[in-house]
Amino acid sequence: MRLSGLGKTLGATGEAVERGIDFDELPSYVGYQVRRAQARLFSELEAALRVFELTPGSFGVLTLIHANPGVTQGALAAAFGVDKSTMSPVIVRLERRGLVRREVQAHDRRRHALFLAPAAEPTYRAARDKVRTVEESIAARLTEVEQRELGRLLVKLQGADAP
Amino acid sequence: MRLSGLGKTLGATGEAVERGIDFDELPSYVGYQVRRAQARLFSELEAALRVFELTPGSFGVLTLIHANPGVTQGALAAAFGVDKSTMSPVIVRLERRGLVRREVQAHDRRRHALFLAPAAEPTYRAARDKVRTVEESIAARLTEVEQRELGRLLVKLQGADAP
Repeated sequence: MRLSGLGKTLGATGEAVERGIDFDELPSYVGYQVRRAQARLFSELEAALRVFELTPGSFGVLTLIHANPGVTQGALAAAFGVDKSTMSPVIVRLERRGLVRREVQAHDRRRHALFLAPAAEPTYRAARDKVRTVEESIAARLTEVEQRELGRLLVKLQGADAP
Repeated sequence: MRLSGLGKTLGATGEAVERGIDFDELPSYVGYQVRRAQARLFSELEAALRVFELTPGSFGVLTLIHANPGVTQGALAAAFGVDKSTMSPVIVRLERRGLVRREVQAHDRRRHALFLAPAAEPTYRAARDKVRTVEESIAARLTEVEQRELGRLLVKLQGADAP
């Protein structure tokens, strides 16, 4: 694995706590707190998407291709903040599954325009409905005021150049 | 890459926004908001740790080995919520770099106790100081009241079984 991948699971499990693992100062870091919450929320999404053989990441890719028909791999990579070599295998896998198709662009044969395959629509819609349900159940843990405050604090935490 | 890995960067870059990518309903999801914040904070940490050839993930592993001398790989994996096969290559790499050493346990030869190598102390301390500095600069974007509120909301968001 990439070491960076490990970070995705910086959430202590009950098992680790039971074993008396000392997390030292990690839990005092706001970055760690955000990571732990993110890891737990993603594992809920992962579980919900497993039946579709999708992950939160590949669902995000399908969502962006669906919303941006003809998007290029480069634009997708930029949207997710990864380089093209990272995006490529994700697209290849979705293509092999018949969920995404590529079209060579007439004006630039090196660039491929990406589209959701017609056969992918039912899978995409079912997965999206599932994600909505999970998202609603997560959001419902907070009041609406708290949801807005959390959103504001998360943006503020990212510093002045955040969107 | 694992598709799940893609999610780590669900933060739109300025480039993507300039290209006019439509993120559809993703930004309305609290899970996406947490993911985006986490991705940005982690990229700050990644940049800070690069000089040590560490990532936030491998730094976390060093921190836990430092705080729990003799910890087993299984306990570490549980602490980070990953399976042993995911943890193993991280440990192998840290061992090859001379930062971590293993000792076979007398009472159970299949289990290895992990220790920070003496030569790793300066690297670990320098990396920890760097992480503290980055963490302080991140936290300083919020007031102390906001920091506490963010921590509370992140825990609440994880549901009733959160720590």
